[in-house]
Amino acid sequence: MKRPAAPLRKACDGIRANSPTRPAHRPDGPSLPRRRTAHRPAHRPAPENRWPPGRTATMLGRMEIREATPEDWAAVWPFFHRIVAAGETFTYPTDLTSAEARGWWMLPAPDRTVVAVDDTTGAVLGTAKMNRNQAGGGAHVASASFMVDPDHAGRGTGRALGEEALRWARERGFRAVQFNAVVASNAPAVGLYRSLGFAVVGTVPEGFRHPRLGYVDLYVMHRRL
Amino acid sequence: MKRPAAPLRKACDGIRANSPTRPAHRPDGPSLPRRRTAHRPAHRPAPENRWPPGRTATMLGRMEIREATPEDWAAVWPFFHRIVAAGETFTYPTDLTSAEARGWWMLPAPDRTVVAVDDTTGAVLGTAKMNRNQAGGGAHVASASFMVDPDHAGRGTGRALGEEALRWARERGFRAVQFNAVVASNAPAVGLYRSLGFAVVGTVPEGFRHPRLGYVDLYVMHRRL
Repeated sequence: MKRPAAPLRKACDGIRANSPTRPAHRPDGPSLPRRRTAHRPAHRPAPENRWPPGRTATMLGRMEIREATPEDWAAVWPFFHRIVAAGETFTYPTDLTSAEARGWWMLPAPDRTVVAVDDTTGAVLGTAKMNRNQAGGGAHVASASFMVDPDHAGRGTGRALGEEALRWARERGFRAVQFNAVVASNAPAVGLYRSLGFAVVGTVPEGFRHPRLGYVDLYVMHRRL
Repeated sequence: MKRPAAPLRKACDGIRANSPTRPAHRPDGPSLPRRRTAHRPAHRPAPENRWPPGRTATMLGRMEIREATPEDWAAVWPFFHRIVAAGETFTYPTDLTSAEARGWWMLPAPDRTVVAVDDTTGAVLGTAKMNRNQAGGGAHVASASFMVDPDHAGRGTGRALGEEALRWARERGFRAVQFNAVVASNAPAVGLYRSLGFAVVGTVPEGFRHPRLGYVDLYVMHRRL
Protein backbone atom coordinates (compact mmCIF):
# COMPACT_ATOMS: atom_id res chain seq x y z
CA MET A 1 0.00 0.00 0.00
CA LYS A 2 2.85 2.36 0.61
CA ARG A 3 3.78 4.66 -2.19
CA PRO A 4 7.02 6.51 -2.48
CA ALA A 5 7.53 10.13 -3.41
CA ALA A 6 4.23 11.31 -2.00
CA PRO A 7 5.24 14.28 0.11
CA LEU A 8 2.88 15.39 2.83
CA ARG A 9 1.03 18.63 2.37
CA LYS A 10 2.65 19.92 5.52
CA ALA A 11 6.05 19.66 3.97
CA CYS A 12 4.90 21.51 0.91
CA ASP A 13 3.35 24.21 3.02
CA GLY A 14 6.64 24.75 4.68
CA ILE A 15 8.10 25.25 1.27
CA ARG A 16 5.41 27.49 -0.03
CA ALA A 17 6.54 30.68 1.62
CA ASN A 18 9.89 30.68 -0.13
CA SER A 19 9.12 28.72 -3.26
CA PRO A 20 8.83 31.03 -6.24
CA THR A 21 8.18 28.09 -8.54
CA ARG A 22 5.00 26.98 -6.80
CA PRO A 23 2.17 27.31 -9.31
CA ALA A 24 0.03 30.24 -8.29
CA HIS A 25 -3.03 28.97 -10.09
CA ARG A 26 -3.40 25.64 -8.33
CA PRO A 27 -7.10 25.66 -7.46
CA ASP A 28 -6.75 23.28 -4.56
CA GLY A 29 -3.65 24.85 -3.17
CA PRO A 30 -3.14 24.54 0.56
CA SER A 31 -3.70 27.36 2.96
CA LEU A 32 -2.68 25.58 6.11
CA PRO A 33 -0.47 27.19 8.71
CA ARG A 34 3.08 27.49 7.49
CA ARG A 35 4.66 25.37 10.12
CA ARG A 36 7.99 23.69 9.83
CA THR A 37 8.36 20.41 11.61
CA ALA A 38 11.11 17.99 12.34
CA HIS A 39 9.46 15.62 9.93
CA ARG A 40 9.76 17.91 6.93
CA PRO A 41 12.07 16.38 4.39
CA ALA A 42 15.10 18.47 3.56
CA HIS A 43 14.72 18.06 -0.15
CA ARG A 44 12.20 19.95 -2.23
CA PRO A 45 10.18 17.64 -4.41
CA ALA A 46 9.66 18.47 -8.02
CA PRO A 47 6.43 20.42 -8.44
CA GLU A 48 4.80 17.72 -10.51
CA ASN A 49 5.29 15.28 -7.69
CA ARG A 50 3.89 17.34 -4.89
CA TRP A 51 0.27 16.29 -5.08
CA PRO A 52 0.16 13.24 -7.29
CA PRO A 53 -3.43 12.84 -8.45
CA GLY A 54 -5.16 9.84 -7.00
CA ARG A 55 -2.48 9.08 -4.48
CA THR A 56 -3.68 7.24 -1.41
CA ALA A 57 -0.59 7.26 0.73
CA THR A 58 1.32 10.08 2.31
CA MET A 59 4.80 10.03 3.78
CA LEU A 60 5.56 11.92 6.96
CA GLY A 61 9.08 11.02 7.82
CA ARG A 62 8.52 7.68 9.45
CA MET A 63 4.76 7.74 8.98
CA GLU A 64 2.52 6.71 6.15
CA ILE A 65 -1.18 7.46 5.75
CA ARG A 66 -3.06 4.99 3.60
CA GLU A 67 -6.56 3.66 3.05
CA ALA A 68 -7.73 1.43 5.88
CA THR A 69 -8.35 -2.18 4.92
CA PRO A 70 -10.63 -4.62 6.73
CA GLU A 71 -7.52 -6.24 8.14
CA ASP A 72 -6.56 -2.98 9.88
CA TRP A 73 -9.49 -3.15 12.25
CA ALA A 74 -7.75 -5.62 14.52
CA ALA A 75 -5.05 -3.01 15.11
CA VAL A 76 -7.45 -0.08 15.38
CA TRP A 77 -9.93 -1.63 17.80
CA PRO A 78 -7.69 -1.77 20.90
CA PHE A 79 -7.02 1.95 20.98
CA PHE A 80 -10.45 2.81 19.59
CA HIS A 81 -11.93 0.89 22.49
CA ARG A 82 -9.60 2.49 24.99
CA ILE A 83 -10.43 5.98 23.80
CA VAL A 84 -14.18 5.52 23.45
CA ALA A 85 -14.63 3.53 26.67
CA ALA A 86 -12.89 6.34 28.56
CA GLY A 87 -15.80 8.51 27.48
CA GLU A 88 -13.87 11.77 27.56
CA THR A 89 -13.61 12.80 23.93
CA PHE A 90 -16.19 11.12 21.70
CA THR A 91 -19.97 11.20 21.63
CA TYR A 92 -20.04 7.48 20.96
CA PRO A 93 -21.62 4.84 23.17
CA THR A 94 -18.91 3.87 25.61
CA ASP A 95 -19.92 0.22 25.46
CA LEU A 96 -19.67 -0.34 21.72
CA THR A 97 -18.67 -3.85 20.75
CA SER A 98 -15.91 -4.35 18.24
CA ALA A 99 -18.42 -5.18 15.52
CA GLU A 100 -20.54 -2.14 16.28
CA ALA A 101 -17.52 0.14 16.47
CA ARG A 102 -16.29 -1.15 13.16
CA GLY A 103 -19.58 -0.10 11.62
CA TRP A 104 -19.26 3.37 13.15
CA TRP A 105 -15.72 3.86 11.97
CA MET A 106 -14.88 1.90 8.82
CA LEU A 107 -16.78 3.85 6.19
CA PRO A 108 -17.51 2.63 2.67
CA ALA A 109 -16.90 4.85 -0.33
CA PRO A 110 -17.54 7.62 -1.12
CA ASP A 111 -16.69 8.20 2.52
CA ARG A 112 -13.27 7.12 3.61
CA THR A 113 -11.27 5.71 6.50
CA VAL A 114 -7.49 5.85 6.66
CA VAL A 115 -4.80 4.64 9.02
CA ALA A 116 -1.50 6.26 9.92
CA VAL A 117 1.17 3.58 9.99
CA ASP A 118 4.73 3.56 11.24
CA ASP A 119 6.77 3.40 8.10
CA THR A 120 9.27 0.99 9.60
CA THR A 121 7.30 -1.31 11.87
CA GLY A 122 3.92 -1.14 10.18
CA ALA A 123 2.26 -0.38 13.53
CA VAL A 124 -1.02 1.51 13.26
CA LEU A 125 -0.51 4.85 15.02
CA GLY A 126 -3.89 6.40 14.41
CA THR A 127 -6.90 6.51 12.15
CA ALA A 128 -9.32 8.98 10.64
CA LYS A 129 -12.66 8.79 8.93
CA MET A 130 -13.89 11.36 6.46
CA ASN A 131 -17.41 11.86 5.24
CA ARG A 132 -20.04 14.23 4.00
CA ASN A 133 -21.48 16.08 6.99
CA GLN A 134 -25.00 16.54 5.67
CA ALA A 135 -26.92 15.51 2.59
CA GLY A 136 -28.97 17.58 0.18
CA GLY A 137 -28.28 21.29 0.43
CA GLY A 138 -25.59 20.61 3.03
CA ALA A 139 -23.63 18.13 0.94
CA HIS A 140 -20.82 20.57 0.16
CA VAL A 141 -19.48 20.39 3.72
CA ALA A 142 -17.33 17.47 4.83
CA SER A 143 -16.66 16.16 8.29
CA ALA A 144 -13.97 13.97 9.82
CA SER A 145 -13.01 12.23 13.03
CA PHE A 146 -9.60 11.26 14.33
CA MET A 147 -8.15 8.82 16.82
CA VAL A 148 -4.51 8.47 17.75
CA ASP A 149 -3.24 5.55 19.78
CA PRO A 150 -2.28 7.05 23.16
CA ASP A 151 0.74 4.79 23.17
CA HIS A 152 1.99 6.60 20.07
CA ALA A 153 1.11 10.16 21.03
CA GLY A 154 3.47 13.03 20.30
CA ARG A 155 4.55 11.97 16.84
CA GLY A 156 2.36 14.40 14.93
CA THR A 157 -0.06 11.68 13.89
CA GLY A 158 -3.14 13.75 14.67
CA ARG A 159 -1.85 16.67 12.64
CA ALA A 160 -0.94 14.46 9.71
CA LEU A 161 -4.39 12.87 9.75
CA GLY A 162 -6.04 16.27 9.98
CA GLU A 163 -4.09 17.57 7.03
CA GLU A 164 -4.93 14.47 5.06
CA ALA A 165 -8.62 15.00 5.79
CA LEU A 166 -8.36 18.57 4.52
CA ARG A 167 -6.55 17.40 1.42
CA TRP A 168 -9.19 14.76 0.77
CA ALA A 169 -12.06 17.17 1.29
CA ARG A 170 -10.52 19.72 -1.02
CA GLU A 171 -9.80 17.12 -3.65
CA ARG A 172 -13.38 15.88 -3.45
CA GLY A 173 -14.68 19.37 -4.04
CA PHE A 174 -16.06 20.09 -0.60
CA ARG A 175 -16.19 23.79 0.25
CA ALA A 176 -15.61 23.39 3.96
CA VAL A 177 -15.00 20.90 6.75
CA GLN A 178 -17.07 20.88 9.91
CA PHE A 179 -16.66 19.04 13.19
CA ASN A 180 -19.99 18.76 14.94
CA ALA A 181 -19.07 17.79 18.47
CA VAL A 182 -15.60 18.70 19.69
CA VAL A 183 -15.44 18.31 23.47
CA ALA A 184 -14.31 21.68 24.77
CA SER A 185 -12.18 20.12 27.51
CA ASN A 186 -10.22 18.17 24.91
CA ALA A 187 -7.59 20.88 24.67
CA PRO A 188 -5.17 18.95 22.45
CA ALA A 189 -7.85 18.38 19.83
CA VAL A 190 -9.19 21.93 20.00
CA GLY A 191 -5.67 23.30 19.72
CA LEU A 192 -4.80 21.03 16.82
CA TYR A 193 -7.93 21.99 14.92
CA ARG A 194 -7.30 25.68 15.50
CA SER A 195 -3.78 25.29 14.20
CA LEU A 196 -5.24 23.57 11.13
CA GLY A 197 -7.33 26.64 10.44
CA PHE A 198 -10.58 25.66 12.13
CA ALA A 199 -12.60 28.13 14.15
CA VAL A 200 -15.28 27.55 16.74
CA VAL A 201 -18.52 28.58 15.02
CA GLY A 202 -20.85 27.18 17.65
CA THR A 203 -20.89 26.23 21.31
CA VAL A 204 -23.46 23.83 22.68
CA PRO A 205 -23.56 24.70 26.37
CA GLU A 206 -22.91 21.65 28.54
CA GLY A 207 -23.43 19.44 25.53
CA PHE A 208 -21.09 16.75 26.83
CA ARG A 209 -21.01 14.90 30.11
CA HIS A 210 -17.38 14.27 30.97
CA PRO A 211 -16.82 11.39 33.40
CA ARG A 212 -14.52 13.49 35.61
CA LEU A 213 -15.27 17.10 34.75
CA GLY A 214 -19.02 16.90 34.59
CA TYR A 215 -20.89 18.85 31.94
CA VAL A 216 -18.64 20.64 29.49
CA ASP A 217 -19.37 22.45 26.25
CA LEU A 218 -19.32 20.96 22.80
CA TYR A 219 -17.84 23.02 20.00
CA VAL A 220 -18.88 23.11 16.39
CA MET A 221 -15.65 23.81 14.49
CA HIS A 222 -15.43 24.82 10.87
CA ARG A 223 -12.89 25.61 8.21
CA ARG A 224 -13.45 26.84 4.70
CA LEU A 225 -11.44 25.18 1.96
CA MET B 1 -55.50 6.44 19.08
CA LYS B 2 -57.15 9.66 20.19
CA ARG B 3 -57.49 10.19 23.89
CA PRO B 4 -59.82 12.65 25.51
CA ALA B 5 -58.97 15.05 28.29
CA ALA B 6 -55.33 15.38 27.34
CA PRO B 7 -54.84 19.11 27.24
CA LEU B 8 -51.93 20.47 25.29
CA ARG B 9 -49.05 22.00 27.19
CA LYS B 10 -49.72 25.22 25.38
CA ALA B 11 -53.17 25.48 26.85
CA CYS B 12 -51.82 24.84 30.31
CA ASP B 13 -49.16 27.44 29.82
CA GLY B 14 -51.81 29.93 29.05
CA ILE B 15 -53.39 29.04 32.34
CA ARG B 16 -50.23 29.17 34.32
CA ALA B 17 -49.98 32.90 34.70
CA ASN B 18 -53.24 33.19 36.54
CA SER B 19 -53.59 29.81 38.15
CA PRO B 20 -52.83 30.00 41.86
CA THR B 21 -53.56 26.30 42.24
CA ARG B 22 -50.88 25.13 39.84
CA PRO B 23 -48.40 22.99 41.78
CA ALA B 24 -45.20 24.93 42.21
CA HIS B 25 -43.09 21.86 42.69
CA ARG B 26 -43.75 20.14 39.40
CA PRO B 27 -40.23 19.16 38.35
CA ASP B 28 -41.01 19.11 34.66
CA GLY B 29 -43.10 22.22 34.67
CA PRO B 30 -43.21 24.14 31.43
CA SER B 31 -41.26 27.30 30.87
CA LEU B 32 -42.53 28.04 27.41
CA PRO B 33 -43.66 31.48 26.38
CA ARG B 34 -46.99 32.33 27.95
CA ARG B 35 -48.95 32.67 24.78
CA ARG B 36 -52.66 32.48 24.56
CA THR B 37 -54.08 31.03 21.40
CA ALA B 38 -57.46 30.68 19.85
CA HIS B 39 -57.18 26.96 20.43
CA ARG B 40 -56.94 27.19 24.19
CA PRO B 41 -59.90 25.46 25.79
CA ALA B 42 -61.98 27.64 28.03
CA HIS B 43 -62.17 25.13 30.83
CA ARG B 44 -59.37 24.45 33.25
CA PRO B 45 -58.65 20.77 33.63
CA ALA B 46 -58.19 19.24 37.05
CA PRO B 47 -54.50 19.28 37.98
CA GLU B 48 -54.27 15.51 37.98
CA ASN B 49 -55.40 15.43 34.37
CA ARG B 50 -53.08 18.05 32.99
CA TRP B 51 -50.18 15.82 32.07
CA PRO B 52 -51.41 12.27 32.30
CA PRO B 53 -48.38 10.02 32.52
CA GLY B 54 -47.84 7.93 29.45
CA ARG B 55 -50.30 9.82 27.31
CA THR B 56 -49.59 9.68 23.61
CA ALA B 57 -52.17 12.03 22.26
CA THR B 58 -52.65 15.73 22.70
CA MET B 59 -55.67 17.81 21.86
CA LEU B 60 -55.27 21.23 20.33
CA GLY B 61 -58.76 22.35 19.64
CA ARG B 62 -59.25 20.67 16.31
CA MET B 63 -55.84 19.01 16.26
CA GLU B 64 -54.51 15.87 17.83
CA ILE B 65 -50.90 14.78 18.11
CA ARG B 66 -50.40 11.06 18.37
CA GLU B 67 -47.78 8.39 17.71
CA ALA B 68 -47.28 7.77 14.01
CA THR B 69 -48.24 4.32 12.81
CA PRO B 70 -46.90 2.55 9.73
CA GLU B 71 -50.21 3.30 8.04
CA ASP B 72 -49.62 7.04 8.44
CA TRP B 73 -46.70 7.04 6.03
CA ALA B 74 -48.99 7.08 3.01
CA ALA B 75 -50.35 10.40 4.23
CA VAL B 76 -46.98 11.82 5.29
CA TRP B 77 -45.03 10.97 2.15
CA PRO B 78 -46.79 13.37 -0.27
CA PHE B 79 -45.92 16.48 1.74
CA PHE B 80 -42.60 15.05 2.94
CA HIS B 81 -41.65 14.58 -0.69
CA ARG B 82 -42.90 18.02 -1.65
CA ILE B 83 -40.89 19.68 1.12
CA VAL B 84 -37.69 17.69 0.70
CA ALA B 85 -37.68 17.73 -3.10
CA ALA B 86 -37.95 21.52 -2.98
CA GLY B 87 -34.55 21.44 -1.26
CA GLU B 88 -35.03 24.68 0.62
CA THR B 89 -35.30 23.63 4.22
CA PHE B 90 -33.88 20.16 4.92
CA THR B 91 -30.40 18.71 4.56
CA TYR B 92 -31.88 15.54 3.13
CA PRO B 93 -31.20 14.12 -0.30
CA THR B 94 -33.77 15.74 -2.55
CA ASP B 95 -34.29 12.53 -4.49
CA LEU B 96 -35.20 10.22 -1.62
CA THR B 97 -37.59 7.46 -2.57
CA SER B 98 -40.61 6.82 -0.40
CA ALA B 99 -38.96 3.76 1.15
CA GLU B 100 -35.74 5.63 1.87
CA ALA B 101 -37.59 8.60 3.29
CA ARG B 102 -39.60 6.35 5.51
CA GLY B 103 -36.37 5.05 7.00
CA TRP B 104 -35.14 8.59 7.59
CA TRP B 105 -38.32 9.72 9.27
CA MET B 106 -40.22 6.89 10.95
CA LEU B 107 -38.04 6.21 13.98
CA PRO B 108 -38.29 3.13 16.18
CA ALA B 109 -38.32 3.42 19.97
CA PRO B 110 -36.75 4.85 22.02
CA ASP B 111 -36.85 7.56 19.37
CA ARG B 112 -40.26 8.67 18.28
CA THR B 113 -42.29 9.93 15.35
CA VAL B 114 -45.66 11.59 15.73
CA VAL B 115 -48.30 12.99 13.45
CA ALA B 116 -50.57 15.96 13.94
CA VAL B 117 -54.04 15.03 12.78
CA ASP B 118 -57.15 17.06 12.14
CA ASP B 119 -59.46 16.05 14.92
CA THR B 120 -62.49 16.05 12.68
CA THR B 121 -61.34 14.77 9.33
CA GLY B 122 -58.39 12.66 10.42
CA ALA B 123 -56.19 14.38 7.83
CA VAL B 124 -52.48 14.37 8.68
CA LEU B 125 -51.45 18.02 9.03
CA GLY B 126 -47.82 17.54 9.96
CA THR B 127 -45.29 15.25 11.57
CA ALA B 128 -42.29 15.34 13.86
CA LYS B 129 -39.53 13.00 14.79
CA MET B 130 -37.69 13.14 18.09
CA ASN B 131 -34.45 11.47 18.97
CA ARG B 132 -31.25 11.59 20.95
CA ASN B 133 -28.86 14.00 19.25
CA GLN B 134 -25.62 12.26 20.20
CA ALA B 135 -24.63 9.09 22.02
CA GLY B 136 -22.22 8.58 24.90
CA GLY B 137 -21.38 11.77 26.72
CA GLY B 138 -23.81 13.69 24.51
CA ALA B 139 -26.81 11.47 25.17
CA HIS B 140 -28.51 13.99 27.45
CA VAL B 141 -29.40 16.27 24.54
CA ALA B 142 -32.37 15.50 22.30
CA SER B 143 -33.08 16.62 18.77
CA ALA B 144 -36.20 16.84 16.66
CA SER B 145 -37.38 17.62 13.16
CA PHE B 146 -40.70 18.90 11.95
CA MET B 147 -42.69 18.97 8.74
CA VAL B 148 -46.05 20.63 8.21
CA ASP B 149 -48.09 20.00 5.10
CA PRO B 150 -47.98 23.31 3.19
CA ASP B 151 -51.63 22.81 2.34
CA HIS B 152 -52.43 22.99 6.04
CA ALA B 153 -50.12 25.84 7.03
CA GLY B 154 -51.25 28.54 9.43
CA ARG B 155 -53.04 26.30 11.91
CA GLY B 156 -50.34 26.26 14.55
CA THR B 157 -49.31 22.72 13.67
CA GLY B 158 -45.60 23.48 13.77
CA ARG B 159 -45.86 25.09 17.16
CA ALA B 160 -47.91 22.24 18.56
CA LEU B 161 -45.39 19.72 17.26
CA GLY B 162 -42.52 21.75 18.68
CA GLU B 163 -44.14 21.92 22.08
CA GLU B 164 -44.83 18.21 21.99
CA ALA B 165 -41.16 17.55 21.22
CA LEU B 166 -40.14 19.67 24.21
CA ARG B 167 -42.62 17.85 26.42
CA TRP B 168 -41.33 14.48 25.24
CA ALA B 169 -37.70 15.44 25.73
CA ARG B 170 -38.38 16.75 29.22
CA GLU B 171 -40.37 13.67 30.12
CA ARG B 172 -37.56 11.45 28.87
CA GLY B 173 -35.08 13.23 31.07
CA PHE B 174 -33.13 15.09 28.40
CA ARG B 175 -31.47 18.26 29.64
CA ALA B 176 -31.70 20.16 26.38
CA VAL B 177 -32.91 20.03 22.80
CA GLN B 178 -30.65 20.88 19.89
CA PHE B 179 -31.36 21.40 16.21
CA ASN B 180 -28.22 20.81 14.19
CA ALA B 181 -29.03 22.33 10.84
CA VAL B 182 -31.69 25.02 10.70
CA VAL B 183 -31.54 26.79 7.36
CA ALA B 184 -31.10 30.47 8.19
CA SER B 185 -33.32 31.57 5.32
CA ASN B 186 -36.19 29.49 6.69
CA ALA B 187 -37.56 32.42 8.64
CA PRO B 188 -40.78 30.75 9.75
CA ALA B 189 -38.86 27.87 11.34
CA VAL B 190 -36.25 30.11 12.93
CA GLY B 191 -38.97 32.36 14.31
CA LEU B 192 -40.96 29.44 15.63
CA TYR B 193 -37.96 27.94 17.35
CA ARG B 194 -37.03 31.25 18.92
CA SER B 195 -40.54 31.64 20.22
CA LEU B 196 -40.26 28.16 21.71
CA GLY B 197 -37.23 29.28 23.67
CA PHE B 198 -34.45 28.18 21.34
CA ALA B 199 -31.40 30.32 20.74
CA VAL B 200 -28.86 30.22 17.93
CA VAL B 201 -25.71 28.81 19.53
CA GLY B 202 -23.83 28.26 16.31
CA THR B 203 -23.71 29.47 12.73
CA VAL B 204 -22.15 27.39 9.99
CA PRO B 205 -21.29 29.97 7.36
CA GLU B 206 -22.80 29.10 3.99
CA GLY B 207 -23.55 25.63 5.27
CA PHE B 208 -26.59 25.22 3.02
CA ARG B 209 -27.00 25.62 -0.70
CA HIS B 210 -30.45 26.99 -1.31
CA PRO B 211 -31.81 26.36 -4.81
CA ARG B 212 -32.81 30.00 -5.27
CA LEU B 213 -30.82 31.97 -2.72
CA GLY B 214 -27.47 30.26 -3.13
CA TYR B 215 -25.32 29.58 -0.11
CA VAL B 216 -26.97 30.51 3.16
CA ASP B 217 -25.99 29.86 6.76
CA LEU B 218 -27.03 26.91 8.85
CA TYR B 219 -27.92 27.54 12.47
CA VAL B 220 -27.37 25.29 15.43
CA MET B 221 -30.25 26.05 17.76
CA HIS B 222 -30.50 25.00 21.37
CA ARG B 223 -32.81 25.17 24.32
CA ARG B 224 -32.25 23.99 27.86
CA LEU B 225 -35.06 22.07 29.50
